[in-house]
Amino acid sequence: MSNARPQHAALTQFPVQDDCLQIGGISLTRLAQRVGATPFYAYDREAMTQRVALLRRHLPEQVHLHYAMKANPMPAVVQHMAGLVDGIDVASGNELRVALDAGMKPELISFAGPGKSDTELSCAIASGIVINLESEAEMERVARIGAGLGVQPKVAVRVNPDFELKSSGMKMGGGPKQFGVDAERVPGMLRRIGELQLDFHGFHIFSGSQNLKAASIQEAHEKTFALAIRLAADAPRPVRLLNIGGGFGVPYFPGEERLDVAAIGENLKRLLPDVQRQLPEANVVIELGRYFVAEAGVYVARVVDRKVSRGQVFLVTDGGLHHHLSASGNFGQVIRKNYPVVIGNRVQGQEREVVSVVGPLCTPLDLLADQMEMARADVGDLVVVFQSGAYGMTASPSAFLSHPAALEVLV
Amino acid sequence: MSNARPQHAALTQFPVQDDCLQIGGISLTRLAQRVGATPFYAYDREAMTQRVALLRRHLPEQVHLHYAMKANPMPAVVQHMAGLVDGIDVASGNELRVALDAGMKPELISFAGPGKSDTELSCAIASGIVINLESEAEMERVARIGAGLGVQPKVAVRVNPDFELKSSGMKMGGGPKQFGVDAERVPGMLRRIGELQLDFHGFHIFSGSQNLKAASIQEAHEKTFALAIRLAADAPRPVRLLNIGGGFGVPYFPGEERLDVAAIGENLKRLLPDVQRQLPEANVVIELGRYFVAEAGVYVARVVDRKVSRGQVFLVTDGGLHHHLSASGNFGQVIRKNYPVVIGNRVQGQEREVVSVVGPLCTPLDLLADQMEMARADVGDLVVVFQSGAYGMTASPSAFLSHPAALEVLV
Repeated sequence: MSNARPQHAALTQFPVQDDCLQIGGISLTRLAQRVGATPFYAYDREAMTQRVALLRRHLPEQVHLHYAMKANPMPAVVQHMAGLVDGIDVASGNELRVALDAGMKPELISFAGPGKSDTELSCAIASGIVINLESEAEMERVARIGAGLGVQPKVAVRVNPDFELKSSGMKMGGGPKQFGVDAERVPGMLRRIGELQLDFHGFHIFSGSQNLKAASIQEAHEKTFALAIRLAADAPRPVRLLNIGGGFGVPYFPGEERLDVAAIGENLKRLLPDVQRQLPEANVVIELGRYFVAEAGVYVARVVDRKVSRGQVFLVTDGGLHHHLSASGNFGQVIRKNYPVVIGNRVQGQEREVVSVVGPLCTPLDLLADQMEMARADVGDLVVVFQSGAYGMTASPSAFLSHPAALEVLV
Repeated sequence: MSNARPQHAALTQFPVQDDCLQIGGISLTRLAQRVGATPFYAYDREAMTQRVALLRRHLPEQVHLHYAMKANPMPAVVQHMAGLVDGIDVASGNELRVALDAGMKPELISFAGPGKSDTELSCAIASGIVINLESEAEMERVARIGAGLGVQPKVAVRVNPDFELKSSGMKMGGGPKQFGVDAERVPGMLRRIGELQLDFHGFHIFSGSQNLKAASIQEAHEKTFALAIRLAADAPRPVRLLNIGGGFGVPYFPGEERLDVAAIGENLKRLLPDVQRQLPEANVVIELGRYFVAEAGVYVARVVDRKVSRGQVFLVTDGGLHHHLSASGNFGQVIRKNYPVVIGNRVQGQEREVVSVVGPLCTPLDLLADQMEMARADVGDLVVVFQSGAYGMTASPSAFLSHPAALEVLV
């Protein structure tokens, strides 16, 4: 413990009582009994509520917050978030149904994503939500389907900006991209939107995700506003919606630090007056998925076997990469790093040891913790992977080797 | 086309007629109509049959072939394979049910995998299949559960060998591992198996997978036999089952060449007489998953949008990483490389162009082909990813972004 290796950021969202983690005010041992089976994901309602409150505190009050439900589409989570945020972004027709079921007003729902099917577009138009157009061809399809339905489609243009979000975990704008329409082609598209008599709402300008550097996000915000103001000159009507994306990251790996949202808020306070002067009708939206829910969730698996192979201890659990691909290091990561992992029912424990936590799959990729120090654990103990509320269960190959699916609870 | 860059291995398993790929004797266009929706996986029955025949031709007739159904657990595929091979290996309780449904005799089914649950072990013992013991603790659990059921469990010991399979895509033996029991601990375990009166069948010695170098597999076979003969000295009864694993790879990426199975067969012919002399009751089993089915399968998605962004062409399809994680480069690959991809309904086409094929997901990871040359394609055309019969649908995060699941057909 007394070395200089990078450590995981402090995780204070879940208290520890009698050496047992508390999730949503329930001890993990009790929660596992209540769920009735392992493995499971548990999401903490209050942690999500507090996260939204944190943003409300630091960001200017004019900024609207949207939940990108792809991060965690569990209906109960979407329902909870719907009561806290100002809108929901969906990424598929099925997500759209869940968002509407959650009671979110259609005009506060937006639908982004390349390759929307005709059926999805038809449902979206009929629902009266805002479609973020990803290409000129999609615009034409939307117009045609809207005419067929006799409904005027609400649209925004997703713009592939002419800049990149620096230090972003995933770059989604700048250069040639499958997302949105290149900024330089947007003026022509706006004219066509006018001709097609689509109900133009505004722009979606999103340059990347999982960013932990406030300075890069601040710079992106400044460039995004400038681009939106420039593009608005060609719009068929005043911009009402300006979705500046999200990209707020959370710390997963040793050495990563929390994003400075206060700095981002200060910068927005500086920038917004000019935006409001130039685009007086625009609602500025920040759309976040991971940032709202990732830290509110844990993945819990039970130790099924404890074995020592040539001096190394392996805890074999009933959960693994089939439920939590990211924690195994197999989703967009070049070099595998450990998520924060503890033994949830004996956080400090009486002894500590260095172990690898693996799953039940017949592949060496099925690794939840690679030689991490944790409390000494035995069969029956509960392994907890933190930072697991976003892109967990749905972003994992749950049918792999036909093991049972993980359960999910919101507590 | 006339450059020196590494090319994909020639794929001759599917003929082309009128510039359209034929799968199972049906043109791809017609097959897509028959399936009724895209995306889908199609597996060619005859290609699997021929692959088994190829092995029967090259391997000594005493070698038994088992199908590791985790590679493709579609019930129709398992049923087809059950009629061709000598046994099935399962990796979970659910796979076990499918194998039994397929009519495979229980004594020809084996169950490997760390972290088997008590329920799975109980089903396995009650079924009368052979359990590959992964640890001493699992052995004790098996004995306890067998006693409770009043059934003598059939067991084999999965051995973590004291050597590694060279050039293997995934090393699964040698050094500290979660798989099997370290070779040096096996003699003690064999004594305990005798004490516990478990029905000892033999050994499972498996050192790695996705290997394209015959010489490494030959060396592994030689070492595996030597190890088995050494370990058999401590066995409570003669070895009847000697599963020497598989590890036969298929070419996925440019520059990879087909495995020389003839050389592997010659080597086995040289080695087997001594094995048969020393372990006269042993059935030697080679267990293969990927090698049987990978090349027999394709993944088919339809082009939904064609867009040009800053000079690059993107074909946006209705399929992507949520159905085919490996082809997107996100499953155990350090550097992303392209799978072989063609436009299935215009294989050569009239024009060629360099394109990227992406899916409908809001992530830059959703990439099926990165700047590959193929026939010029438009909306409605069918993108085909070859080498997709193994670790495709079930090894992918199908719930990601709540898009529809892929269909599967065996033709």
